[in-house]
Amino acid sequence: MSEPQKNRRLILERRPQGIATHQDVVLREGVVGTPGDGQILIRNHFFSIDPAIRDWMSERPSYLPSIRIGDPVRSTVIGEVLESRHPNFTPGQLAVGIGGWEEYSVADGGYFFPVELQPGDEEQQYLSIYGAVGLTPYFGLLEVGKPKEGETVLISAAAGAVGSLAGQIARIKGCRAVGIAGSDEKCRWIVEELGFDAAINYRTEADMVTAIGRACPQGVDVYFDNVGGEILDATLLNLNKDARIVFCGAISSYNSTEPVPGPYNFWQILARSATVEGYLVSDYLDQFPGGIAQMRQWVSEGRLQYREQIVDGLENTLDAFNLLFDGRNEGKLMVRLPR
Amino acid sequence: MSEPQKNRRLILERRPQGIATHQDVVLREGVVGTPGDGQILIRNHFFSIDPAIRDWMSERPSYLPSIRIGDPVRSTVIGEVLESRHPNFTPGQLAVGIGGWEEYSVADGGYFFPVELQPGDEEQQYLSIYGAVGLTPYFGLLEVGKPKEGETVLISAAAGAVGSLAGQIARIKGCRAVGIAGSDEKCRWIVEELGFDAAINYRTEADMVTAIGRACPQGVDVYFDNVGGEILDATLLNLNKDARIVFCGAISSYNSTEPVPGPYNFWQILARSATVEGYLVSDYLDQFPGGIAQMRQWVSEGRLQYREQIVDGLENTLDAFNLLFDGRNEGKLMVRLPR
Repeated sequence: MSEPQKNRRLILERRPQGIATHQDVVLREGVVGTPGDGQILIRNHFFSIDPAIRDWMSERPSYLPSIRIGDPVRSTVIGEVLESRHPNFTPGQLAVGIGGWEEYSVADGGYFFPVELQPGDEEQQYLSIYGAVGLTPYFGLLEVGKPKEGETVLISAAAGAVGSLAGQIARIKGCRAVGIAGSDEKCRWIVEELGFDAAINYRTEADMVTAIGRACPQGVDVYFDNVGGEILDATLLNLNKDARIVFCGAISSYNSTEPVPGPYNFWQILARSATVEGYLVSDYLDQFPGGIAQMRQWVSEGRLQYREQIVDGLENTLDAFNLLFDGRNEGKLMVRLPR
Repeated sequence: MSEPQKNRRLILERRPQGIATHQDVVLREGVVGTPGDGQILIRNHFFSIDPAIRDWMSERPSYLPSIRIGDPVRSTVIGEVLESRHPNFTPGQLAVGIGGWEEYSVADGGYFFPVELQPGDEEQQYLSIYGAVGLTPYFGLLEVGKPKEGETVLISAAAGAVGSLAGQIARIKGCRAVGIAGSDEKCRWIVEELGFDAAINYRTEADMVTAIGRACPQGVDVYFDNVGGEILDATLLNLNKDARIVFCGAISSYNSTEPVPGPYNFWQILARSATVEGYLVSDYLDQFPGGIAQMRQWVSEGRLQYREQIVDGLENTLDAFNLLFDGRNEGKLMVRLPR
């Protein structure tokens, strides 16, 4: 390979308090590294912009270690393998895995998977519908929530990348799908375009307990939660007996600077014999091929719709990331680097 | 039957703020009622004194409705059926079920079960080892916690009626059983007499996160929780991946006058792919006979020990009840009425 020397990287300079700023995450020029044993060198084509990254920036324990100060911000990426010292990869292949917000990443090959595009596929789909974003609602709803036909499935952040798919999969399985979102436009979109049975705009409802009860007249059997906080509390008062909560995220707390208590209605878990199950899509890695095949079939049949929002340029990554936290993004958010 | 006229009853006069007082629960003399269709008249022999009663006194939603002001305090009881207008019962039978803190209860027969004493049985055992207290750890641990041989089972309120049995059942199933209790004497008892592998005195430990980590060097696979609050928070930081929390009670919050938040480390449920399952023994009513048979066998083999603490006299019921909340009771607490 020709040796690229420069590597623009977004470095975590200090841990953010609240929303991450350009003082916390700083663009620095470095040099491209050389892979050691078991590593690969990848030229990044797309970054996946996900709420969990905010958690990784913080110091508290998480399902991955904190990003170290001075390291590039950790991110799922897709790109081309330039050099490989890992048996799974050869140069020229596409690979998806845990890299960073930088032009080139040197990474452990064990955190990457080779991607073979099928006819009609686009690269970035392996960060959206055929990546963690698509498979998170797939396994979370079907393997953890286990909805039965005719049950009511409530979804928070329902216009988001994960939630919008969760609701459509619930519909495919014969459930009543009710979504919670943050604008009337989003609510219209999930009902009119995606086929949700009902939607709740949490910004305009004074009393979410009542609003959920109205939208879910038979009660809530499965709650697919990406949000936590007050909406989780309101949902707990609407659960049916033996309800299942798929605890998939808690975006309401990711930028918090104070300790965040669990739900005040925690007791209802006992009172309603409900189950809260923490869920990481990475626990289902070995089932990804089957999941992707099913998702691909539903997409080809027109039964699953999804949106991608692509922002161009490494230098715009942090601003794109912060769109996640005020609900301004529309669809699965990714950053594209020039080839 | 001879018609008893007077009926001494402990009436809920007002909802307690914090610990229930003699101004909240007042001894009143009433008359014995007459059962209507589907009801039975029972002469109470023993009251079961349980933490959940405190919750029923409060106004917040619970797994049973609040006790109404002016009604006797609701309680599990065992006694003799005097009159029956329910097909399951005939006068002279023993019955266990949901009655009240009063000498005679008129109750829905659907909330009672006939009891046939077997040789060697004592009546009050159907409120302790063969009642909800014995079957709560039996089904909770085995059906919800599902411990595998060699796993670590942590139990809060481990010297209590439920917790002490949960630990012994964990040992029978080949697990490491670790108990949390509130005095050195209790800790000694559960280790030396009941065979727990280790015990933690939460009153003398400055840092419960570290203390649990020390007593559970392989991490916690199953947490049988009767307590909630700070001990739950400390446990969440010691969970193994895929850990199960049997959410059986939350005695730390029952006397609270303020809203009680859920655990601050709620997020760890996601980070560790853990499950919290609310558990009510009443969901297993149809499996009680099998559970009682297994418990009876273990008792007869000397593999299960339990303690009963019997207080005499209706008028001492409230003081007996409050023993539960400062940890002074020793064994399953019951009140005995004169025959």
